[in-house]
Amino acid sequence: MASTMAAEEAPSKEAPAGWLDAVGARCLAEARGFVEARAAEHFSGRAEGELAETVIPQFLAGGKFLRPMFAYVGWRCGGPESDAAVRAAASLELLHCFALAQDDVMDGSALRRGRPALHVRFSRWHAEQRWSGSADRFGESAAILAGDLFLVWSEQLLRESGLAAEALSRGWPRYDAMRAELAVGQLADLVNDARTLPGWDSLLDVLRRKSGNYTVRRPLEFGAALAGCGPDVLAALTEYGGLVGEAFQFKDDLLGVFGDPAVTGKPSGQDLRDRKASSVVVLAAEMADRAQHDELGELLNLVTVDDDAVSRWCGLIAATGARERLGELIRERADKAQAVIDAAVVPRQAADALALLATRCTEREQ
Amino acid sequence: MASTMAAEEAPSKEAPAGWLDAVGARCLAEARGFVEARAAEHFSGRAEGELAETVIPQFLAGGKFLRPMFAYVGWRCGGPESDAAVRAAASLELLHCFALAQDDVMDGSALRRGRPALHVRFSRWHAEQRWSGSADRFGESAAILAGDLFLVWSEQLLRESGLAAEALSRGWPRYDAMRAELAVGQLADLVNDARTLPGWDSLLDVLRRKSGNYTVRRPLEFGAALAGCGPDVLAALTEYGGLVGEAFQFKDDLLGVFGDPAVTGKPSGQDLRDRKASSVVVLAAEMADRAQHDELGELLNLVTVDDDAVSRWCGLIAATGARERLGELIRERADKAQAVIDAAVVPRQAADALALLATRCTEREQ
Repeated sequence: MASTMAAEEAPSKEAPAGWLDAVGARCLAEARGFVEARAAEHFSGRAEGELAETVIPQFLAGGKFLRPMFAYVGWRCGGPESDAAVRAAASLELLHCFALAQDDVMDGSALRRGRPALHVRFSRWHAEQRWSGSADRFGESAAILAGDLFLVWSEQLLRESGLAAEALSRGWPRYDAMRAELAVGQLADLVNDARTLPGWDSLLDVLRRKSGNYTVRRPLEFGAALAGCGPDVLAALTEYGGLVGEAFQFKDDLLGVFGDPAVTGKPSGQDLRDRKASSVVVLAAEMADRAQHDELGELLNLVTVDDDAVSRWCGLIAATGARERLGELIRERADKAQAVIDAAVVPRQAADALALLATRCTEREQ
Repeated sequence: MASTMAAEEAPSKEAPAGWLDAVGARCLAEARGFVEARAAEHFSGRAEGELAETVIPQFLAGGKFLRPMFAYVGWRCGGPESDAAVRAAASLELLHCFALAQDDVMDGSALRRGRPALHVRFSRWHAEQRWSGSADRFGESAAILAGDLFLVWSEQLLRESGLAAEALSRGWPRYDAMRAELAVGQLADLVNDARTLPGWDSLLDVLRRKSGNYTVRRPLEFGAALAGCGPDVLAALTEYGGLVGEAFQFKDDLLGVFGDPAVTGKPSGQDLRDRKASSVVVLAAEMADRAQHDELGELLNLVTVDDDAVSRWCGLIAATGARERLGELIRERADKAQAVIDAAVVPRQAADALALLATRCTEREQ
């Protein structure tokens, strides 16, 4: 009897995961099909086409497709299952590819998802062809241009998604805000990198405007707007999105310092090596006692951050209590988000998916 | 009596210029108003905003607005005077700003329209703020991001132009082709730069696909498609556009070697310093005798192209006859284009404007 109960209960936990993963797979298939067709159209038969036609569509693989999933769940808060809506949601992954390709150039990141970044792949190819000129410079320029194409194709995929004009017209303002915020946010990031450590409140402000909004809240609102959801549903999604987005970013920052390189696909302590003013670094500075504060200052001003410095820095952050405290802040936000969903009037399937996505965003290891 | 005749004839030559310049001014006003509003929306009250809010709209000034003019003339081959069509045409100037901002980074060009390039302005600003990190790197990244914003805003201006959905739907495929070709063409350029001098036919092929099409033919076809022009008008515009676009590029290449720095706003012989495989350089190689060919090869392989090398190179190109021959090719194309317009059934105002634009494209000194 107990085993029958378990078997009966299982689907209610497994079904959202199965459904969500299927949504992710549909978004990948649509995005990849679209990009492959565009790349073939523009690159076939060209010297540089051989690489571009392969590397550009490949760049889509390996993504978590979180943004399209959130957009599609937002859509399902008011709209029926729809291939057109899947395509509209998938357009956000192309937007994400634009941001990743160009950010990696600007931040000088050599790895992306455990593989060479796009500019590194282009640069190696240039070197293999034994062409004259700087292979690094070529790789960076080619990755910027590939990013531009992803930006163009994202909008084209959305416009050609097959959604009705009325639905699209509700989505455009949110889509436009999202893509402009991406560029504006990255510009703000370049400025932040160049200045001294911000305070906790000012950090939270930047974080809300940039990655937090971009990953969860904006995609959810975009999908719900396409579906024509009313103000009550939109307000609930906005609140959920703000909480889960912030928790997602906190988790990202914890992984950027303490993540396992074998799982994250990035070098250990990457954010420390990059001197990123991330939430865990800022929180550690706020929680540090005098001696810890001096030691943090010393580490922040190192000319080269080697493995020893990373391990000393990690230990120091943990000793301030910032690692543990950030974990609590993540759980607090996840709990509040669940309460928002429990109280909201959204279809069961969407509510289950939101609960599952909140867990995935806050308990992930990569 | 003679003076009365002259006074009566004058308007027929002056009117197109007055009308065209007014179109250019209307396009600039629309583009600038749109960009200023977007920049204020995104940058107000930010540390980096002070500069971005000024520099980004300023970047629009000083342009020739050729592409919007061609697009609007294309529109007038089938459509009435319209502010919505002016906005749609102006979107092409924002697309052009995207290309200029990013190309200058990739080509390492410090000057644009006689003023510091966008990345140089951002870089100097970083240095003035005395921030840490590389000012050059910051300038390049900021200019790439400003380019991204122009790319986004171009599409948004077109979509929000006020043209009817039916008109827009005729324009999108051409608009999409144009912006994708910009990125794809720049990628091909990076590859060309890195290889040996192409032959004349292969150069013409690249030139037609890239800048020739982009400046004249595509904008004309785009405007005419928005207006719903029939196949006969489109065919005439395509033929005219191919001829004038190629002549425009030949002229551009002549100015890149022989242009007066005080007029062009670029250093003398800029294309030689950049080792650009431009039409005049390729033609010189084809027309050179054995001794000239050897000397050209020597110049092409110089590690540094100084003022002496530029002046030797200019003399050599002229001595092969390539400078004069390219001038003939330009005039041939301009004459053929005029014949196409004379035979085409387009409104008088559009025909006059096309004749004037052909002259401006082929007889300009900057």
